[in-house]
Amino acid sequence: MTTNRPHVVVVGAGFGGLSCVRSLAKVDVDITLIDRHNYHLFQPLLYQVATAGLSPAEIAWPIRRLVRNQANVSVRLDCVVDVDVSRKQVQLQSGEPLAYDCLVLATGARHAYFGNDQWAEYAPGLKSVDDATMIRRRILLAFEQAEMAPTDAQPRWLTVVVVGAGPTGVELAGTIAELAHKTLARDFRKIDPRSTRIVLVEAGDRVLSAMPPDLSAKALKSLQKLGVEVRLGTPITACDAEGVMIGEERLPAATVLWAAGVAASPAGQWLGAECDRVGRVQVAPDFSVPQCDGVFTIGDTAALSIDGEPLPGIAPAAKQAGAYVGRAIAASLAGKDLAPFKYRDSGNLATIGRRSAVIDFGRIKLSGWLAWWGWGIAHIYFLIGTKSRLLVALQWFWSYITFDRGARLITGRQSRSSTES
Amino acid sequence: MTTNRPHVVVVGAGFGGLSCVRSLAKVDVDITLIDRHNYHLFQPLLYQVATAGLSPAEIAWPIRRLVRNQANVSVRLDCVVDVDVSRKQVQLQSGEPLAYDCLVLATGARHAYFGNDQWAEYAPGLKSVDDATMIRRRILLAFEQAEMAPTDAQPRWLTVVVVGAGPTGVELAGTIAELAHKTLARDFRKIDPRSTRIVLVEAGDRVLSAMPPDLSAKALKSLQKLGVEVRLGTPITACDAEGVMIGEERLPAATVLWAAGVAASPAGQWLGAECDRVGRVQVAPDFSVPQCDGVFTIGDTAALSIDGEPLPGIAPAAKQAGAYVGRAIAASLAGKDLAPFKYRDSGNLATIGRRSAVIDFGRIKLSGWLAWWGWGIAHIYFLIGTKSRLLVALQWFWSYITFDRGARLITGRQSRSSTES
Repeated sequence: MTTNRPHVVVVGAGFGGLSCVRSLAKVDVDITLIDRHNYHLFQPLLYQVATAGLSPAEIAWPIRRLVRNQANVSVRLDCVVDVDVSRKQVQLQSGEPLAYDCLVLATGARHAYFGNDQWAEYAPGLKSVDDATMIRRRILLAFEQAEMAPTDAQPRWLTVVVVGAGPTGVELAGTIAELAHKTLARDFRKIDPRSTRIVLVEAGDRVLSAMPPDLSAKALKSLQKLGVEVRLGTPITACDAEGVMIGEERLPAATVLWAAGVAASPAGQWLGAECDRVGRVQVAPDFSVPQCDGVFTIGDTAALSIDGEPLPGIAPAAKQAGAYVGRAIAASLAGKDLAPFKYRDSGNLATIGRRSAVIDFGRIKLSGWLAWWGWGIAHIYFLIGTKSRLLVALQWFWSYITFDRGARLITGRQSRSSTES
Repeated sequence: MTTNRPHVVVVGAGFGGLSCVRSLAKVDVDITLIDRHNYHLFQPLLYQVATAGLSPAEIAWPIRRLVRNQANVSVRLDCVVDVDVSRKQVQLQSGEPLAYDCLVLATGARHAYFGNDQWAEYAPGLKSVDDATMIRRRILLAFEQAEMAPTDAQPRWLTVVVVGAGPTGVELAGTIAELAHKTLARDFRKIDPRSTRIVLVEAGDRVLSAMPPDLSAKALKSLQKLGVEVRLGTPITACDAEGVMIGEERLPAATVLWAAGVAASPAGQWLGAECDRVGRVQVAPDFSVPQCDGVFTIGDTAALSIDGEPLPGIAPAAKQAGAYVGRAIAASLAGKDLAPFKYRDSGNLATIGRRSAVIDFGRIKLSGWLAWWGWGIAHIYFLIGTKSRLLVALQWFWSYITFDRGARLITGRQSRSSTES
């Protein structure tokens, strides 16, 4: 930078990074916000892109647009590949190093196959817009293949396996069940999409294990009502082009989706910092990284326990952490102290299909259609900008009354070849 | 097919093919509709996807959804690779041959580089959804590259060349000018997007040569008002990774878009039929192909003159031809005669940016803002379904009052690497 103001480098324009940048709006610093995508993504609704309900642009906004009125921010489309903590420099994929006074790493998480990286090809996970359109293509192409296949090959094409029954897995399975059993019901001539098997496989003993057991039980019942087969306590033991092994049982399946595990971004490796089991950096109570001067880590790539409770890996926690770190940087520049971080628990929620959801506000627990409305209103509220809210509300209203889904497009590199498997 | 009803195979679910299928709704035939995409595309608005104004799903609808209530139609996602006229069979990419009694080829056109196919890599054309998202990525990435580039390299990144001043070229150039000069104006820190040069190159002596000269002159004026540099009477003589040669002049440009030429699909080659200069099949006045029993060709892949006037390559002409061929097939099955095809000229129109358009209705000619409103209303009217109309109207209304564009996403295979050129 050409000024004498302190240079704050924020890596990652997710919920945490963006919130940190915004809380520094009136502070006399120069900020560089780096992301490898040009958009901020509303990840909680990404599964709706993967299942053809929404278009990517309805849940993603250009980062430049979001910070264009904040004069102290420069946006950079680039990838961080390393950090030199002693020289206080970030190494970028595009070449030259970038010096920082403060560094905030909000680089999130990616999916993890726990030693079975060869499964990634057959069981894609859902993290980016490109993941979502690729999964959408696979799901829709499987029905096309089934329609053309000989009768004995149809069941494999009409079997979808979702691995992992956390919020993403539950939401994917429920929505795919509705897509197959309702939206597509009358669209084919040889196959009956209502015969599609959707199998949700979970190694643990209940769905939505972060929720209280009674809400898990309600979610399970909602899933079963939608026609999802839920297999609890059974891990996937193999995954290949033909399908999966669930424990000892072979299940032929053309579509396998991975929602089982996440690992933190490589931020911990860049820093040489102490990490937990899934690679999250062990941070101090103010999100600073011990032994790394001026470095903070927030969101899914940081591990912090408050009063013995680990901070959850959800959007509100990342936002609060980002805002706190912004204030912490401002306070330290002003030579002031800042009160310790306190997490305000705003609840935990997941949706199952188009009529049911579960919400855990701590003292208040909701399930069923009332929870679904709460979920829908909360998500529309947190979208950015009036236009996105209108567009998403319109799409949802339409799907709700017609069961139609707006974005059933097979696009992308392989879309022309219908013979791929 | 397993029935004894005549089998009509329709290839291509564009305006012509779909209209043919629909006109056979109440006829006692079995129809197979084959397309290599799973969607019908409203091609006249594709340039708005390429310029980040609309999402693909707003102008594309699943073919299965569109014909699901027409019981005599089966949809097949596949590619035709050849036709055996003597055996009356279509050869599909997926393998087995498909027998037909009647065959309707509505396979459209692709872009043509007239002997310079090596230009395709540097100057992509706009025909499919994947073309549009790829062009969107290239346009948006060029600004990101400019922001990171040394000062002397910026002008090349900030130069866009559009080759060909037909409707697509004019609409692209006008919209890119608005994107650069208005939408992105305040989103960067080092570059000024308002300095972007948009150069529209045309070998002929006026823009929109299918329009009357006075409307061409008005369109030219509108383009210049938007800041587009229009070069008439100068062909592109070279095109490579650095830019283009316009006549003898070298113009460094990072983004080159091809809207200069189209060639018909290979339908004429499959049939061994007589074709015109750009590969369109010379059809009889009822769109049947001479010497090919039961074969019809319509839309951009057919050449027909009526009273000395060639049928134009636009959506209304393709729709009318499709509907006529459907009636012709029904009439021949019933042993009846059909009156000759008559083309109802519904006018010719093109838009330039967000406030100007030209419309030629023959006797009535419109230009300026009134034409723009006429254009907008006509296009929303012809979209399929109430929801698409609402979504597109909302997007346009929003862009109109804010200059914002809704779908500024860099997605696709190369989106992670910001160092690609």
